[in-house]
Amino acid sequence: MIDILGIGNAIVDVVARADDGFLSRHDMHKGAMILVDAERAEAVYAAMPPGVESSGGSAANTCAVAAGLGARVAYIGKVADDQLGGVFRHDIKAAGVDFPSSPLIGGAPTARCLILVTPDGQRTMNTFLGACVTLGEADVDATLVASAAVTYLEGYLFDPPEAQAAFRKAAAAAHAAGKQVALSLSDAFCVHRHRAAFRDLVAGHVDILFANETEITALYEENTWEAAAEHARRDVGLAALTRGEGGSVVLRGGETVVVAPEYARIVDTTGAGDAYAAGFLTALTAGLALPACGRLGSLAAAEVIGHYGARPEADLRAMRKLVG
Amino acid sequence: MIDILGIGNAIVDVVARADDGFLSRHDMHKGAMILVDAERAEAVYAAMPPGVESSGGSAANTCAVAAGLGARVAYIGKVADDQLGGVFRHDIKAAGVDFPSSPLIGGAPTARCLILVTPDGQRTMNTFLGACVTLGEADVDATLVASAAVTYLEGYLFDPPEAQAAFRKAAAAAHAAGKQVALSLSDAFCVHRHRAAFRDLVAGHVDILFANETEITALYEENTWEAAAEHARRDVGLAALTRGEGGSVVLRGGETVVVAPEYARIVDTTGAGDAYAAGFLTALTAGLALPACGRLGSLAAAEVIGHYGARPEADLRAMRKLVG
Repeated sequence: MIDILGIGNAIVDVVARADDGFLSRHDMHKGAMILVDAERAEAVYAAMPPGVESSGGSAANTCAVAAGLGARVAYIGKVADDQLGGVFRHDIKAAGVDFPSSPLIGGAPTARCLILVTPDGQRTMNTFLGACVTLGEADVDATLVASAAVTYLEGYLFDPPEAQAAFRKAAAAAHAAGKQVALSLSDAFCVHRHRAAFRDLVAGHVDILFANETEITALYEENTWEAAAEHARRDVGLAALTRGEGGSVVLRGGETVVVAPEYARIVDTTGAGDAYAAGFLTALTAGLALPACGRLGSLAAAEVIGHYGARPEADLRAMRKLVG
Repeated sequence: MIDILGIGNAIVDVVARADDGFLSRHDMHKGAMILVDAERAEAVYAAMPPGVESSGGSAANTCAVAAGLGARVAYIGKVADDQLGGVFRHDIKAAGVDFPSSPLIGGAPTARCLILVTPDGQRTMNTFLGACVTLGEADVDATLVASAAVTYLEGYLFDPPEAQAAFRKAAAAAHAAGKQVALSLSDAFCVHRHRAAFRDLVAGHVDILFANETEITALYEENTWEAAAEHARRDVGLAALTRGEGGSVVLRGGETVVVAPEYARIVDTTGAGDAYAAGFLTALTAGLALPACGRLGSLAAAEVIGHYGARPEADLRAMRKLVG
């Protein structure tokens, strides 16, 4: 029995500081994630300031934070058999997450995300998917899925061609075992690229939905957050909708829980949503009430926002105790 | 014409936090650098908490800081033709340092230094030299050396078997061109391993010596810093001796300049000595007086001590202006 099984794109982040001029000179949309091919990745990397490498990937970040908070966690994702794949494997295991996925041999290299952090703390991401494009149904162990209280899927999985099949297989296996499926929408542009598939999945196969303001309005093509939120309330059993500095709102049937943000010095917002989902699901799978779930989400997000990088720096066990 | 040419072990750092118990369980001497083979590197890495990767190497750090301060800088060092070698090359070039060295093809991987940072900010280093052991005379371009006002050598170069020859060739080429040779002693244990060779070099071939308290007393086998410092004064034209929180003392013939430390929040002392040398040499090659050289050294060290990692995070151009 585990609490959370994450499935996602296994990525090593390369984080560097840049000013807004760098973004506009390189046609980047601030705050968004764009997919780049190997050639564009080379060009962006060559132009970037010195960087710092650390393991990333949205669902993988969530898993690392959840394990730090005390949850029992496993992760499925595809790295290559190369140095950065070794770094990814080391870090997720050292974070306390089980990582049974075998590496890709002799194919594309481990995925890299080139992240530019502007002085306002916003991160702009250029992802070269590399080995992640080979993640497919065969990588999803249905027995592992059945053992998890929640299977957590990142929306970015809709980009690699085979991953949607992995996604659907995992959702089916979870529900066959009477377990829950959580989805994070990841990015508004990702939602635009795959809106129909997302709408179908959320309405039919997702029990817990995570989304920020631009993502939820993109999903439902609504002009206001309020209208989109009401749509989510009807569509999905439990929705945890983050609102940046406005905290978050949790909807379950007729119930609405407003969660205050925790104070954070904003250094780098990379991984904030991932950490929120980690806190939320750790509390939820421990049987805590929705206000405690939201609070642990806010606390975890605040820790990650306070420094560069998406993985936690602080000892999170004390944080877990704050919510009972 | 360039100001500073650094020659050193080209290394990628893997930095993780650890408590003192981790160091003692793994027989590490706090604050020191030990050399490890591939097998021991694997074992230490497997036991380490999640890490963050960034380019390192003592002389390379000095070069990156000096370039950030506005000096014209080049670097010679050996990486492999692998992912971490690509990271090293990107970072030093992005820092503004010319890096003409060709990579090693088909041999050992790029060097890694596994760094454990304890809560007191001390760093304990486990270096797997990898491709660095192939650095030799052939890698030293005498024309490049002759074009540099100062050729800066790290003491760690005495560990790889061929590098001492590179070291001597560089010193000879610099002096033949009427230029200066600087040496950093790097580490007290490194001095113990190669004391006779260091003594010979310092007395006969070094114009500018950098050393901290344990290194200078180890070099001269003196019980007090004062006795060792007087020995250095007789031995070398210019000695910049750092004293940790006590600042530094610069000796040139009968002249003694006491330099105050700059206030720094101590997070991670990795690279403090490297940054001091960078500030000092940037000011020296710009023709500034010794007090300004020491002050720029202290300012640069304070920046690096205030965050994790050995490369600067702040924009250093403003710092350079502080010393005229």
